[in-house]
Amino acid sequence: MRTFVECIPCFFKQALEQGRLFTGNELIHKEIMDEVAALVPKFSLGLTPPEMAREMHRLFDRRFGGQDLYKRIKDQSNRRAMELYPKLKEKVARSKDRLLMAVELAIAGNVIDYAVKNTLNIEAEIEKLLGEDFPAGRKGAFEYEEFKRDLNAAKTVLYLADNAGEIVFDRVLIEEFRQDRKVIFAVRNKPSINDALMEDALFCGIDKVAQVISSGVDAPGTVLKYCSEEFLKIFKQADLIISKGQGNYEALSEADGRIYFLLKVKCPVIARHSGATLGDIVLKRIG
Amino acid sequence: MRTFVECIPCFFKQALEQGRLFTGNELIHKEIMDEVAALVPKFSLGLTPPEMAREMHRLFDRRFGGQDLYKRIKDQSNRRAMELYPKLKEKVARSKDRLLMAVELAIAGNVIDYAVKNTLNIEAEIEKLLGEDFPAGRKGAFEYEEFKRDLNAAKTVLYLADNAGEIVFDRVLIEEFRQDRKVIFAVRNKPSINDALMEDALFCGIDKVAQVISSGVDAPGTVLKYCSEEFLKIFKQADLIISKGQGNYEALSEADGRIYFLLKVKCPVIARHSGATLGDIVLKRIG
Repeated sequence: MRTFVECIPCFFKQALEQGRLFTGNELIHKEIMDEVAALVPKFSLGLTPPEMAREMHRLFDRRFGGQDLYKRIKDQSNRRAMELYPKLKEKVARSKDRLLMAVELAIAGNVIDYAVKNTLNIEAEIEKLLGEDFPAGRKGAFEYEEFKRDLNAAKTVLYLADNAGEIVFDRVLIEEFRQDRKVIFAVRNKPSINDALMEDALFCGIDKVAQVISSGVDAPGTVLKYCSEEFLKIFKQADLIISKGQGNYEALSEADGRIYFLLKVKCPVIARHSGATLGDIVLKRIG
Repeated sequence: MRTFVECIPCFFKQALEQGRLFTGNELIHKEIMDEVAALVPKFSLGLTPPEMAREMHRLFDRRFGGQDLYKRIKDQSNRRAMELYPKLKEKVARSKDRLLMAVELAIAGNVIDYAVKNTLNIEAEIEKLLGEDFPAGRKGAFEYEEFKRDLNAAKTVLYLADNAGEIVFDRVLIEEFRQDRKVIFAVRNKPSINDALMEDALFCGIDKVAQVISSGVDAPGTVLKYCSEEFLKIFKQADLIISKGQGNYEALSEADGRIYFLLKVKCPVIARHSGATLGDIVLKRIG
């Protein structure tokens, strides 16, 4: 998905939230706004939002020496999600359609996203997920039958992770289909907001249910031109690709490849582009 | 009130909304974003938000030759508000405390604001105001007794208008206190978003209840350094000043002068600065 003009105010919002994690000094926040402002004219709307986000991260790296300030937030998300793991498993075990429940939980776990806001009441969000009224939110495009069919036929599944914490929900889904097929779980290569890295995958035990690799990318979305050769080979050969979250959707919505996007729609631009409504949970194949 | 760093993403949002009124061409919207981006580093946080908005308007004037694209919206707001005028008068007549009701209606009329969004369901907003559950929204600082006392003692009242349409609500308030005192009603000098101009004041019959003048300002807030000499003289001499809306609050919150601010709090920065909560209606004296 290309960048739309309404993404631009949002880039500033995101940069400000990230700047606030590094320092409370408003003068430095203003300098960051000035630096993002200098990027805007150079940035084409033909690029994807994660490419712009990647340029913004470079500003932060230059200024703050590559500190991973979301580390604490990511660790906390991982721990809380791991505490929930038994409840998630129980929820799946008690459901009539185990795979459907696991898919819904995996998408619901996509609320653990710090891109636009530094604060998130994970407990409250998770309670909503686990409550009797699950799934929270309206379903948008939800191609479950097609997904089940394609998944059953797939021998190799590439799973593109999004956020730390959320990957515990991904693990629950992977555990439902990993029998008889090879599952490769790809994380980001470098810190990018609260996106999952190798260390998060290991903490959450993803290595017990899949082969964990890095996509090689340092953007908050799987931008193919920045991915490693190793990853691209797997991307090309996998029978089915499961792509989590908005950043991966933005990076890959025009990609050619058997990709099912699983995401919660958290911004009006993605809502419009995917034909869903803000807050919807989406399971949709493209390519 | 100075500009806070979180106002910067909002400047881009406002510029985009305004750009959309001029053209549907996204490439031109991007050019506008680029031009606003070029302003950001030159803009100090020590200035008020209406001063930044004024610079943005100059960009639009240069690009679109000073077209008043909010004219249609303003005319519509004026017409709809004038249709409501008898209902507003009836509401005041039926209330136990006429002045209080007129103050509440005047603040409620401040919802007619197109700064951040081009769409507004005025009918629905007005219905909420006129419904039995009025006043909608929590009251923040609401210094009514002090206001009544100071108003009773004042011989000259300067009333600073905010938006077209809203001025009909202001008229209803002015009609409650204009007996035995001189009322001067100040509008903007040039088009600025949907802010009221002389022509709006005349359409809504404000000239029947007050002396209507222009403040001389071409920003969406009464920035004193851009006001006319004539206005500044009145500003200095008035016994009481009633300032409507966020833009005037931003421009004058540190001004020295017997100013009562009447506004609906529509942004988190103003909420924090004024000690109110988003959505509150505020009646507060400063100076």
